[in-house]
Amino acid sequence: VTNDPRPATRNPQPATFESHLRTILGDAHVITDPDLKASYETDWTRRFSGSARAVVRPADAKQVAAVVRACAAEGIPIVPQGGNTGLVGGSIPRGGEVVLSLARLGAAEPVDTMAAQITIEAGVTVASLQNLARDAGLMYGVDLASRDSATVGGTIATNAGGLRVLRYGATRAQVIGIQAVLPNGEIIERMSGLTKDNTGYDLAGLLTGSEGTLGIVTRARLKLWNPPVARATALVALDSLSEAISLLGRVRGLASLDAIEAFFNDGMQLVCDHTGAPRPFPGVSGCYLVIECAAQSDPAEELASLLDGSPEVKAAAFATERPQREALWRYREAHTEAIGAAGVPHKLDVTLPLARMVEFEATVRAAVESATPGARAILFGHLGDGNLHVNVLGPADDDERADDAVLRLVASLGGSISAEHGIGVAKAPWLHLTRSPADIAAMRAIKAALDPQGIMNPGVIFGAQ
Amino acid sequence: VTNDPRPATRNPQPATFESHLRTILGDAHVITDPDLKASYETDWTRRFSGSARAVVRPADAKQVAAVVRACAAEGIPIVPQGGNTGLVGGSIPRGGEVVLSLARLGAAEPVDTMAAQITIEAGVTVASLQNLARDAGLMYGVDLASRDSATVGGTIATNAGGLRVLRYGATRAQVIGIQAVLPNGEIIERMSGLTKDNTGYDLAGLLTGSEGTLGIVTRARLKLWNPPVARATALVALDSLSEAISLLGRVRGLASLDAIEAFFNDGMQLVCDHTGAPRPFPGVSGCYLVIECAAQSDPAEELASLLDGSPEVKAAAFATERPQREALWRYREAHTEAIGAAGVPHKLDVTLPLARMVEFEATVRAAVESATPGARAILFGHLGDGNLHVNVLGPADDDERADDAVLRLVASLGGSISAEHGIGVAKAPWLHLTRSPADIAAMRAIKAALDPQGIMNPGVIFGAQ
Repeated sequence: VTNDPRPATRNPQPATFESHLRTILGDAHVITDPDLKASYETDWTRRFSGSARAVVRPADAKQVAAVVRACAAEGIPIVPQGGNTGLVGGSIPRGGEVVLSLARLGAAEPVDTMAAQITIEAGVTVASLQNLARDAGLMYGVDLASRDSATVGGTIATNAGGLRVLRYGATRAQVIGIQAVLPNGEIIERMSGLTKDNTGYDLAGLLTGSEGTLGIVTRARLKLWNPPVARATALVALDSLSEAISLLGRVRGLASLDAIEAFFNDGMQLVCDHTGAPRPFPGVSGCYLVIECAAQSDPAEELASLLDGSPEVKAAAFATERPQREALWRYREAHTEAIGAAGVPHKLDVTLPLARMVEFEATVRAAVESATPGARAILFGHLGDGNLHVNVLGPADDDERADDAVLRLVASLGGSISAEHGIGVAKAPWLHLTRSPADIAAMRAIKAALDPQGIMNPGVIFGAQ
Repeated sequence: VTNDPRPATRNPQPATFESHLRTILGDAHVITDPDLKASYETDWTRRFSGSARAVVRPADAKQVAAVVRACAAEGIPIVPQGGNTGLVGGSIPRGGEVVLSLARLGAAEPVDTMAAQITIEAGVTVASLQNLARDAGLMYGVDLASRDSATVGGTIATNAGGLRVLRYGATRAQVIGIQAVLPNGEIIERMSGLTKDNTGYDLAGLLTGSEGTLGIVTRARLKLWNPPVARATALVALDSLSEAISLLGRVRGLASLDAIEAFFNDGMQLVCDHTGAPRPFPGVSGCYLVIECAAQSDPAEELASLLDGSPEVKAAAFATERPQREALWRYREAHTEAIGAAGVPHKLDVTLPLARMVEFEATVRAAVESATPGARAILFGHLGDGNLHVNVLGPADDDERADDAVLRLVASLGGSISAEHGIGVAKAPWLHLTRSPADIAAMRAIKAALDPQGIMNPGVIFGAQ
């Protein structure tokens, strides 16, 4: 999908505006050469692309603010960009914007071990943040497959979820304070690290998950956790998702539960074909789970004993050492690359009420095939959160009939059309399915209050105006 | 402090406006008789009072919306009121407003044990919510001394904290979705119970803690928790707060840690005098802690063993059974009533960075005495959250010199002038101490966007305009 250009902006003399940017940032950090711009103009799924007027790479919040003021003065729209690992086109230009990359904001203060917090800039990758926490004897609560590229700022802007939401919450639950540049170029900041602070509105929480439409996160104060000392992982085969949900009811009582991830036989087959891994159990099962427990003392016995006593379990493999655990996780984690090797999927990330999930799984594949003949849906996800990733293979990039069928099915079952990826531009046409006119009007009022010119990531969440 | 009347509103014929309210609600639920209004016009600390034009008691969200539309049409301001247990004057009329009591919104749906959630109306008390959760084998994460009067809606509006924030987070962390009436009379609602839902701005999180200035919470979907099966409580004597903070560093590693509460010798003396309880240990100590652990298996041994090996501990008493545990807690919990028996305190609820807390405790009493000769400060609070309640006895109701001295000291040490009580009208003059002009401008822009007439709890957070 190459997005349409945004409505025409006031049209300043390009030379004047760009030379202003060069004065602020230096020549090296204002990129207008098409070859150099290209990597900022297409997302990694290859589904979204657009042309940027310029790509700018400020070094700190002050430079970000100066760029925002320059753009605001000319009415030129801005697309903030972190690690460019988003899945809904929210950090890709639609046409003519300034792409503002946070990549150079890469500093981190030493971990505050007394408070179990870290102050870190937006451009640091999640993997680097995880390493800094680990080196201080702590851990960061969010982990996701794109950890090596995804950035602190991007994960805050999208309220990223990932593999540990069940235990530690999504990104918003990690954010103690942020520094951000608002659309008027002002910098807001609460970095005192106070976990209890009821002085006015929760601006940090509001900006978290706002997808770059209300401001640009430049720095954050994040919560860290005491890491568990031992982990146990099980790969479990079951007859059906219904059996898996029944097992979830038992497993959820374990205080050590860290993750419970689901996938199905079609995904297992794709992964084994793609990675060459052997089928883990003889025969075919309707549903598979990866269950991980983590605690201060070894949780393996507790987990094994619970699964032994659970009639839903057809077969189970256990691991406590990292290489063996990783081999079990690979069946789940290789889904993304195995699906990517089979085509460019439409990635639909949805939540269902647990009580409606079986009904959804039983009908979504047929709904996809009926919407787009020849298309097929591969499902996997975070069962503990009610979150399924529906990957639709087959439809052309701009054929959204299957997307529409899936999202309408989700809405009809009381689910959410975006669990953790956000709305971006990809899902903006369907926002109204699960947010009421009053909700959307309130969101638009807040957007207009903070960004009256509409220059901050236009088109994202609300669609083209 | 009797607050000044708000700026004059358009002045409709009282009869017309009130008869409109009576049409909406029925005569019994529009209270204009001064004797009947009185209990809604003064807070329980007796520090704040003001005259309401009328007190209305709608039965459901639709009636709330109808009242809001009626007030909006006439430009008449509204003060939403829950259990009236706030400490910053945020639910008390300043003069001429309609007080909108949520007391009749008292329904609750059955606990959803599969999702571990409950849908409940704003007027239900926290104690009733706790009981409903307990009857379903679950627990609500927020507990506070005012549980029998404080309501679900009021605790959401103020993002109430309390005794279990360290483990379960404050109220915002329990809110999965809300239904609320906006200042334009529209109802927003997300009650699907989905814990992962990244579809646009977090309106529920924004309204939580907004102190009735952005809308009126009428219903909420709340998270419930698996309750621990065993508790162990210790009352610990230490030489000083500095020793207590050192001990906190050890205790925080316990996965079972539920609460760590601090108080000092002056408060211990007040409590023993007031309740007749014996001094728990021979001699006098500079600082006392109540530490509580809770887990699926008995945490007593783990806690006792840690405290035995901690050089900071001078003396400790342990309990695992409820009556004995409650006797230890009483030394902490009786502070509020012992202080209240000694006078009408100015209650200043603040957070300090742990690294600055010793300095604060060492200087705040002298700062109070120097600001208002004869005044004294009694401190107690939630050490694990860096949260101290500074109770100033002595100054007249309207003598705010000691308040000013304490809050300026807090700000100079990087703290927050409100940890969990909110800003209300009581702290509005000091908001600027810890929120920057850019922060306040952004908050005002959001306020103006959702409440352009400024009818929703005017004077709260931002002060008189």
